Amino acid sequence: MSALTLSGTELAARLRADVTSRVAALCEAGRHTRVAIVTATADPSSAWYVQSIVKACSRVDIDCDVADLGPDATAAQIGSALRRLSADRGVQGIILQTPLPAGIDVTQAASDIDVSKDIDGANPLSLGRLMAGLPTFAPATAEAVMRLLDHYRVALTGQQAVIVGRSLVVGKPLAQLLLQRDATVTVAHSRTADLPSVTSRADVLIAAAGRTGLIGAGHVRPGASVVDVGTSVTKDGSLAGDVAPDVAEVAGALSPVPGGVGPVTTAVLLRHAVDAAESMAPRKGTLP
Amino acid sequence: MSALTLSGTELAARLRADVTSRVAALCEAGRHTRVAIVTATADPSSAWYVQSIVKACSRVDIDCDVADLGPDATAAQIGSALRRLSADRGVQGIILQTPLPAGIDVTQAASDIDVSKDIDGANPLSLGRLMAGLPTFAPATAEAVMRLLDHYRVALTGQQAVIVGRSLVVGKPLAQLLLQRDATVTVAHSRTADLPSVTSRADVLIAAAGRTGLIGAGHVRPGASVVDVGTSVTKDGSLAGDVAPDVAEVAGALSPVPGGVGPVTTAVLLRHAVDAAESMAPRKGTLP
Repeated sequence: MSALTLSGTELAARLRADVTSRVAALCEAGRHTRVAIVTATADPSSAWYVQSIVKACSRVDIDCDVADLGPDATAAQIGSALRRLSADRGVQGIILQTPLPAGIDVTQAASDIDVSKDIDGANPLSLGRLMAGLPTFAPATAEAVMRLLDHYRVALTGQQAVIVGRSLVVGKPLAQLLLQRDATVTVAHSRTADLPSVTSRADVLIAAAGRTGLIGAGHVRPGASVVDVGTSVTKDGSLAGDVAPDVAEVAGALSPVPGGVGPVTTAVLLRHAVDAAESMAPRKGTLP
Repeated sequence: MSALTLSGTELAARLRADVTSRVAALCEAGRHTRVAIVTATADPSSAWYVQSIVKACSRVDIDCDVADLGPDATAAQIGSALRRLSADRGVQGIILQTPLPAGIDVTQAASDIDVSKDIDGANPLSLGRLMAGLPTFAPATAEAVMRLLDHYRVALTGQQAVIVGRSLVVGKPLAQLLLQRDATVTVAHSRTADLPSVTSRADVLIAAAGRTGLIGAGHVRPGASVVDVGTSVTKDGSLAGDVAPDVAEVAGALSPVPGGVGPVTTAVLLRHAVDAAESMAPRKGTLP
């Protein structure tokens, strides 16, 4: 038996096509869609990620500026840049790239992103609105997991969902999204005792711990749907997930790395940007 | 075998004594501690609860104003009252009483409470800051459960915690607090399939569904610690929890209703008020 592959490429392409036509429609009405990425690190994998966003924006005709504040940026400088971009009507989406310089709390810093432009759901107000079920942008990765599950019609209501990992970009917001969909949700993490016994309960298992190969066949109930959110760079430069290859022999469905959640995440980010651009009222006194 | 009683009365008295001395110290420095309750309902049990807060404040020398906007109040009127109180330097704590008039979203309304005065953690920004682990006021009931567990030295790290109920005042914020303490956390609810099998995994079981007697002996692992957050008013006017009496024969520890989480919740609310008063800087130009 081999698991159904929960590929993200078709879904991502569909999302991008939708974004492209909406960006074009805005453009015809004289409105541009522009994203700004604020970065303050010399981390090479961060630089690689930023370039991938820039390229993805370019493919769907979204303008993308990178404000590189350098690895010595202070919290005040980052806050100032985010507030300036939040006030800039020419920018509809803002991404604060991590890591930040040592000692700067990402979530505290993200408090300066206007929630209407917070397309990666990093502001604590966005997270709280998500918890409360109010309209808001969810972190793109967490939303991408939901969209991937829905694309393959994986049942959620009344199902046991287990998330391994409690980050603010995946685990915690994803728990809120799964609860909204009436799943019974467990969040496990590095301090969980007897992880295999916890993950084996899952009808839907989300691996988001960032530890290569953490989840093996012994962690998975036969037939379960497994989504791999892990993206560690291995010694040979390739991308590895949290799920070991032998899981494919046990799971009913499994998302690959790369080609699973990753492309959907990028497409969700683009979609949030055009959502933000559409919901921003045209400036008074200008033509629509 | 009968369960250890997780009484809240001693803990509540200890918290109140601490609040009383801190309020007195502020008062000696010429600073008053004042709470405002905004209410917009004719619901009698709400009126009873508001009066219990007023009395509790009075016992610890905290001033308490009730702004009763009446059951026909609009969202605009409630927002205006909350913004006025948020700007009023004479008020350090604000409570928005529920229920609100039909059609008004509590969390949306609570967005107008300044987070530094949001002593019941109702503003979505407070909830998001809680999720992010930033300093903030947690909803008093959720914090009371944690304080009760800590008072009786119930182990949490690596333990299986199961919360029944996903409200914004208990279930969801409590999940965040338990995750911060390294418990493996499951949130179950009305759509959970086979609830007894889920709750039976719990080392620590929190019943917060608001359904009288929902949790019976068959839901509880022998020796588990059970906290009953339910407070339904029965036909004869007494207070009933979510936990049936037979659970005492199975659980290792059990909080009673009344006399468990309830008194601790009120004491936590008072403590938050004095926390807020202490952290508010004296007005410039006045004596400290």
